[in-house]
Amino acid sequence: MQQYPSALLDKAVSEFAKLPGIGRKTALRLVLHLLRQTDVDVENFVNAVSRVKKEIKHCRVCHNISDTDICPICADTHRDASIVCVVENVQDVMAIENTQQYRGLYHVLGGIISPMNGIGPNDIEIESLVKRVEEGGVQEVILALSSTMEGDTTNFFISRKLAPFDVTISVIARGISVGDELEYTDEVTLGRAILNRTPLNK
Amino acid sequence: MQQYPSALLDKAVSEFAKLPGIGRKTALRLVLHLLRQTDVDVENFVNAVSRVKKEIKHCRVCHNISDTDICPICADTHRDASIVCVVENVQDVMAIENTQQYRGLYHVLGGIISPMNGIGPNDIEIESLVKRVEEGGVQEVILALSSTMEGDTTNFFISRKLAPFDVTISVIARGISVGDELEYTDEVTLGRAILNRTPLNK
Repeated sequence: MQQYPSALLDKAVSEFAKLPGIGRKTALRLVLHLLRQTDVDVENFVNAVSRVKKEIKHCRVCHNISDTDICPICADTHRDASIVCVVENVQDVMAIENTQQYRGLYHVLGGIISPMNGIGPNDIEIESLVKRVEEGGVQEVILALSSTMEGDTTNFFISRKLAPFDVTISVIARGISVGDELEYTDEVTLGRAILNRTPLNK
Repeated sequence: MQQYPSALLDKAVSEFAKLPGIGRKTALRLVLHLLRQTDVDVENFVNAVSRVKKEIKHCRVCHNISDTDICPICADTHRDASIVCVVENVQDVMAIENTQQYRGLYHVLGGIISPMNGIGPNDIEIESLVKRVEEGGVQEVILALSSTMEGDTTNFFISRKLAPFDVTISVIARGISVGDELEYTDEVTLGRAILNRTPLNK
């Protein structure tokens, strides 16, 4: 345990060290870096963090984070409102947006069903998804969750919840990644990729 | 370049990404982590950063960072005030304190002579070191700078400046490997290097 010459420094380092992936040594480096910056620079840093926490909202429709009540994606009338892509979190929305392959809307669950971590169906935005489908206008729900046990459980739960409605439910394709060598692909993925083969000639 | 759904988020991510070693992807992860914390947690984080920048002082004697005008090390009457260990920065003081091999005082230069980076002798606390020696009471000055070209240059400059005074000048032993930064040296090596310091001026 390092000795700090100042309680103020110790407190700031401790706060930084609470962030994920930041140890005390890195935290110290970050704080000392900030101490070398101008007052205005540090004020900008502090204000940006303070404002994003206080003023950021969640879109009323899709629960993505947003500056406004309705996020720019949901508000965009050029997008196809009949398709809703269900994702775990905000980063997933960004990842899919970056592909520029999708022009529908999103639904951010804000988590994934995980009994191990005590997260049940009521802890994430499933009820609001069901309500969204119930209100009509949605023709397809794409489940784009991670290919893990938790993802599969959540997919299953949502598909059961949406079964009563006249809506197509699909999951994003599971297969070998583009650029991957077949030889090094794990057996489960490869087996599933063979079962879920797609026609090439039409 | 990632698309952010919110200008506030973008601003906060940009501020985090200015920190050393933090890219935009890590910055986003940190900001989203903070958004998941309670208001009080984020307030604590922001206040700690804000306060450390506004209220921290530099010790009048050794220029180490401190909550008070005189730092706890300089104020400690049990320490040997006749030995002054010259280091580049605050991290170096902590590193040497951690070895528990040294009971003298420090002098933090706040940098190192580096013509490449435009840092000359007048940009760091050399004059105040000379004055400290001039005022008397100091019998030995230990130069504990990184074993780099800049460190050697600074050692040479300081030894020339202190030559007129009746004071022993020593450098920490070359136990630390050439090219290594002091901050990251292991405690045993660093502790031994202090014990085995060699005289420079005879």
